[in-house]
Amino acid sequence: MLRPSADGQRYDLLSPTAMPRAAGFLWNRKMMVQMNCRGYAVAQYMQPEPAKYSYAPNLEARTFMQPEQGYYAHHPGRFFYVKDEETGELFSAPHEPVRAAPDRFEFSAGKSDMAWTVENLGIRIELVMGLPVDDVAELWSLKVTNLSGRPRRLSVYPYFTIGYMSWMNQSAEYRPDLGGIVASSVTPYQKVADYFKQKDFKDRTFFLCERTPDAWEVAQEAFEGEGGLHAPSALREEVLAGGDARYETPVAAVQYRLALGPDASEQLRFLFGPAFDDAEIAALRERYLSAAGFAAAREAYAAYIGAGAGCVTVETPDPEFDNFVNHWLPRQVYYHGGSNRLTTDPQTRNYLQDNMGMSFVHPPTARGAFLHALSQQEATGAMPDGILLVEGAELKYINQVPHTDHCVWLPVCLKAYLDETADWALLDELVFDREGHGVTVAQRIGRAMDWLLAERDERGLSYIAQGDWCDPMNMVGYKGKGVSGWLTVAAAYALNLWAEMCAQHGDEERARHFRAGAQAMNDAANEHLWDGRWFARGITDDGVVFGVADDREGRIWLNPQAWSMLSGAASAQQRASMISAVEEQLHTPYGVQMFAPPFSKMREDVGRVTQKHPGSAENGAVYNHAAAFYIYSLYDGADGEQAWDLMRKMIPGPDQEDYLRRGQLPVFIPNYYRGAWREYPRTAGRSSHLFNTGTVSWIYRCVIEGLCGLVGDAEGLRIAPQLPAAWPGMKAVRTFRGATFEVSVQRGDVAEVTVRCDGTLLPAPRVTGIEAGRRYRLEVTVPAA
Amino acid sequence: MLRPSADGQRYDLLSPTAMPRAAGFLWNRKMMVQMNCRGYAVAQYMQPEPAKYSYAPNLEARTFMQPEQGYYAHHPGRFFYVKDEETGELFSAPHEPVRAAPDRFEFSAGKSDMAWTVENLGIRIELVMGLPVDDVAELWSLKVTNLSGRPRRLSVYPYFTIGYMSWMNQSAEYRPDLGGIVASSVTPYQKVADYFKQKDFKDRTFFLCERTPDAWEVAQEAFEGEGGLHAPSALREEVLAGGDARYETPVAAVQYRLALGPDASEQLRFLFGPAFDDAEIAALRERYLSAAGFAAAREAYAAYIGAGAGCVTVETPDPEFDNFVNHWLPRQVYYHGGSNRLTTDPQTRNYLQDNMGMSFVHPPTARGAFLHALSQQEATGAMPDGILLVEGAELKYINQVPHTDHCVWLPVCLKAYLDETADWALLDELVFDREGHGVTVAQRIGRAMDWLLAERDERGLSYIAQGDWCDPMNMVGYKGKGVSGWLTVAAAYALNLWAEMCAQHGDEERARHFRAGAQAMNDAANEHLWDGRWFARGITDDGVVFGVADDREGRIWLNPQAWSMLSGAASAQQRASMISAVEEQLHTPYGVQMFAPPFSKMREDVGRVTQKHPGSAENGAVYNHAAAFYIYSLYDGADGEQAWDLMRKMIPGPDQEDYLRRGQLPVFIPNYYRGAWREYPRTAGRSSHLFNTGTVSWIYRCVIEGLCGLVGDAEGLRIAPQLPAAWPGMKAVRTFRGATFEVSVQRGDVAEVTVRCDGTLLPAPRVTGIEAGRRYRLEVTVPAA
Repeated sequence: MLRPSADGQRYDLLSPTAMPRAAGFLWNRKMMVQMNCRGYAVAQYMQPEPAKYSYAPNLEARTFMQPEQGYYAHHPGRFFYVKDEETGELFSAPHEPVRAAPDRFEFSAGKSDMAWTVENLGIRIELVMGLPVDDVAELWSLKVTNLSGRPRRLSVYPYFTIGYMSWMNQSAEYRPDLGGIVASSVTPYQKVADYFKQKDFKDRTFFLCERTPDAWEVAQEAFEGEGGLHAPSALREEVLAGGDARYETPVAAVQYRLALGPDASEQLRFLFGPAFDDAEIAALRERYLSAAGFAAAREAYAAYIGAGAGCVTVETPDPEFDNFVNHWLPRQVYYHGGSNRLTTDPQTRNYLQDNMGMSFVHPPTARGAFLHALSQQEATGAMPDGILLVEGAELKYINQVPHTDHCVWLPVCLKAYLDETADWALLDELVFDREGHGVTVAQRIGRAMDWLLAERDERGLSYIAQGDWCDPMNMVGYKGKGVSGWLTVAAAYALNLWAEMCAQHGDEERARHFRAGAQAMNDAANEHLWDGRWFARGITDDGVVFGVADDREGRIWLNPQAWSMLSGAASAQQRASMISAVEEQLHTPYGVQMFAPPFSKMREDVGRVTQKHPGSAENGAVYNHAAAFYIYSLYDGADGEQAWDLMRKMIPGPDQEDYLRRGQLPVFIPNYYRGAWREYPRTAGRSSHLFNTGTVSWIYRCVIEGLCGLVGDAEGLRIAPQLPAAWPGMKAVRTFRGATFEVSVQRGDVAEVTVRCDGTLLPAPRVTGIEAGRRYRLEVTVPAA
Repeated sequence: MLRPSADGQRYDLLSPTAMPRAAGFLWNRKMMVQMNCRGYAVAQYMQPEPAKYSYAPNLEARTFMQPEQGYYAHHPGRFFYVKDEETGELFSAPHEPVRAAPDRFEFSAGKSDMAWTVENLGIRIELVMGLPVDDVAELWSLKVTNLSGRPRRLSVYPYFTIGYMSWMNQSAEYRPDLGGIVASSVTPYQKVADYFKQKDFKDRTFFLCERTPDAWEVAQEAFEGEGGLHAPSALREEVLAGGDARYETPVAAVQYRLALGPDASEQLRFLFGPAFDDAEIAALRERYLSAAGFAAAREAYAAYIGAGAGCVTVETPDPEFDNFVNHWLPRQVYYHGGSNRLTTDPQTRNYLQDNMGMSFVHPPTARGAFLHALSQQEATGAMPDGILLVEGAELKYINQVPHTDHCVWLPVCLKAYLDETADWALLDELVFDREGHGVTVAQRIGRAMDWLLAERDERGLSYIAQGDWCDPMNMVGYKGKGVSGWLTVAAAYALNLWAEMCAQHGDEERARHFRAGAQAMNDAANEHLWDGRWFARGITDDGVVFGVADDREGRIWLNPQAWSMLSGAASAQQRASMISAVEEQLHTPYGVQMFAPPFSKMREDVGRVTQKHPGSAENGAVYNHAAAFYIYSLYDGADGEQAWDLMRKMIPGPDQEDYLRRGQLPVFIPNYYRGAWREYPRTAGRSSHLFNTGTVSWIYRCVIEGLCGLVGDAEGLRIAPQLPAAWPGMKAVRTFRGATFEVSVQRGDVAEVTVRCDGTLLPAPRVTGIEAGRRYRLEVTVPAA
């Protein structure tokens, strides 16, 4: 049903029905497109706010990307109808909208393309979609092969959704001069000021054909007729009618009438995307729409994606895990860092964590992002709710709600960057804010830490305002009094990290100051939030401690446990107690829930999180970002066994039952799997299919620093793998500061980790004096399990 | 294909495919539902902003009602699948989504219900949908009759779209305790303040069954499976699976397994709508879901609709016209006045004109509305862009764009009210504004007129700001200099009307003041805007006169011609010239275009109107509101022949070709028919199907005051019919100030109109001293054609 290609570059799904939402995604510097196995597409590009060129059939709300995106008949898609001209029989590739049972089906999600092979009626359809690097366009190639051993007459009809573009103006026509269908619209608006904002928008959608089609239709209704999308009336005619669309929902449908001898095939190419005007359309055609243009674009795009290959490959007893880590995980990290989730105002915490991930993929990007984020620091030391990326961007959606955790992520993410690069000069860089004040990175982070210290109540606990990391926990502290247990220990962790960095950077006085602050916060957490077996989640405006044993819902939350272990608030005994409580109450076969039990109705002193559907998103899902923190804290505390168990559950598979349950290909980690495992077992484990998630930078870090135990410090590379008990050994290739380390780990009769470097036993498991360009061979022996 | 019922209460369409968008609508005090002949529905209710309970399959934008609303497979609908249990054959009523060709089809739009009769596979399905008066709910009855002459085993599956309710929370289950399917959601939000605004929302959608169904399904995807909406997989099973929906798109589908002997039938009843909680659902069930409950609701609703029957019925040589005027036109007027177009902030001009219409249907409503509107007058005398109807309402959408015409409508609409009622006491009513200042109606209108006089440039022409009556004409004057030719003469007309009313009210000094102002504006229009054959539309910020013979697009506009005739700016010679130019350039077989030629691209000194699709909406459509002004101005100037011609073209039919072209039943006037008759002949005449339009109050006024010539004055009823030349006569029954006038008009050998009242020749065509409760018989003779 499911298999990776031998080289790991692709993942193939052999059924269009087993996992109907299974999808892959591609992106470039300006756009993103997600395609599911059945032919439905979600595509967006930046102009500069996210925009579409293939629309829903109605006026859709502009919103952030949603989890568990639903599909329906007229959802935007890319379909290829095939009609046997002799019998009138019809099927469509990939699968929608005809849904004929294929003789063979293969959806192949590649790292730099998406492809399908579909066989039906003795005809093979091969589809490949690629992207260019710097333009907004889809490059589609279609190969039709006659497998039937006899001559065939076929009509093939590429059908690309254009959809409801605008209530102001939408039309389409076939343009012989441009060689394809061009739909035109005016992005709706009412205020004069918006005219000037929008007048350069790419309000045209083009579908260009390398070879001139035999016929076309551009009006949705004329194409479908009474037949409907699954059996369009227009396909019952000999040729498409060649109509136009005048304030009518446009579609791009063309017809090729093919006569194919036995084993003969035909290859066709198409270009689909938005443009401002005819000149831009003509230029895109010229640039791409040829065999050579496609080949050049394919090569360039593969190189673009290849630049995000990451810094580690592994070879373990778990080949599916290896496949994910070696191919898909760094790709997803790279996507986050490269695309900024297709928003112009990423949440500050997302922006910093996504760039923490880039520390392992392309450190200069991370460096630039830290500097850019700090340039938007407020005079108080606070970090804003979102980081504006382009001129004219505004804080939107959740970024209009005040959250109190954004400063935490500065040292947390910087730590990974510095460990990876030892780029301590960064701390002395001057960063100018909008008022033109230049202050060093170190000073700015210090201010942010002092802001965290200041934003505490009389008990020494951190105010939550209208949310911390948990966006919808918006009513714990909206009256100004409520505090966050998680934020208290997270801030303590950040302060400790920063204190270490200050010390490393030679500022022992500041180090002491922040260490003392961290200690005070850890103490406050222990005094006010320790519930006997675990840490509470917070205290409401009205003084009610929640996330405690007496709560019927939201009894135990993952984050305070994970971060109290990181911050040092938890003693070894507390740690053991928490881990056992988490295991008992939060573990599921699909990972660890963010909390349990989920809320079944609004709790007004906690807020919006309690109103989400139980088991979805922040309301008791296996919310992978939180799970990743926990896994990191387990590795951090050398609980590698349990860390591995939970990390492995984050990746779909490898057994078929698990794939079917998650419904997702193992080519990305989703932001959540459904939780509420006890309450709603039918849906538990189901993937959200939302590949925007802070999870991946942490999991990549966990693989590198935890599982492989290959983490940098100021002078070198430390080696401390945490092998799962069942593994006899593993191998890894790690690039680090320009050098390459070939690492093989095995168990042996040692008390502690021992390392041979190019045959020589090292005095400690640490390589220093690393020479860029050199290959090191490390033989690592860890104590037998 | 199309026919009215004998009593005129209904209009029947006998094909589901000839006019696929043909629709009817019902409304009550809290909601509106539009159903098309094929089973698609658009329903909204007020809480207090417009909300839905049957949603699109995706997250739809919240917007105003759109013209030419498109349909697509998963558009919200009310469907009834029927499966022959013996053969597995399937059809659905009304027509979607199976679209099986029926043996018989009848969509019957009633004044107070909607009904269908569909026959297929020897089974008759009869559907009736009604509304209660004061609750938000749809009352559906289904009758299944076996016509086949042999025993039959059937499954019948009512299927009501619930759709994508919310990304926060959506679920559904069958509730035996409530006797139906209940879906629950949380209206999405992110800000704490919105929680408090939304927490009492009716976030549940219920589908209740009077008789317990044999099975049910509540998850869209489980219902459809691979079969799709047109052939759902769930219907291939013996019984629906009885699942639940947990953060899955809900649907309401139930199954009844029926065994029907020859000619036997079964009757089932259902209730569909939104509710806050279970208690409300139970109460609605109790109130309505029974034969008696349905009957009582039906009676009450018919009485509610009956109260909007209007003040005139006609009998002319044109029975289709009679049908429309006697049944549907006043109903549409009543809808506007009763529902305020389902908005909490109607545009001021719409609110006033809609209530001008209520002067003929329910004058106290009009009176209250005038007072309410004036209570929101600004201190400057200006009227705001919208009138807020409920606590907490805000100016939205187009009401955030400054328009300069709103004051004009005060005397224009008041004139109709006073002519109808002679309620001159209204002028002395004190109206308090928000600051508590009490000023009489007369003073307030005087201030509004002085505001119009003040808001003029050095030439004496009216500033347009970001729009006048034409909302999207937003860039003629956005820099502060541009003027509106239409507004200049419209203000002159308003001033003249108000001057007359002042004089009538005994204030000759104010009358002189306003008359002089009107004269000055008319003079300015003639000096600066007369283009030789017609009046220009305006002068831009940069001093460019537009709507003139030299313009390639937007050459001649209807409104300046219509209103210059009303205002007295146009001499008889100018009038003749304008009418001839309009005839030559703007007449189409489907009415008179608002201007021509339509704009094919943005004209930046005119604005957004030029960006709409050519021939749609304000960009050169047959925009009926503007056409109605013109028709009124023709009647006002005794050009009854041409007025009739254009008014008749506003109603679809009566020949089949015209119905097919418009695509609309003659049960309402849409806001436009497609224009661009010369440029895009294929689509010209197509109805927008948007029944919110300022047109209908004017057309009703034209019928009463123009065609029938039965218009009131301070002391009585004047009689001046304007018979079309082809008519030998007509009859009318007019209720007026509590009396009833039975009027028969015929041609005769008279030089002027003569009237016999109850057999006695009147000295002038005017009845005074009218006694409420009395029936008058008027025999009217008009000069032979």
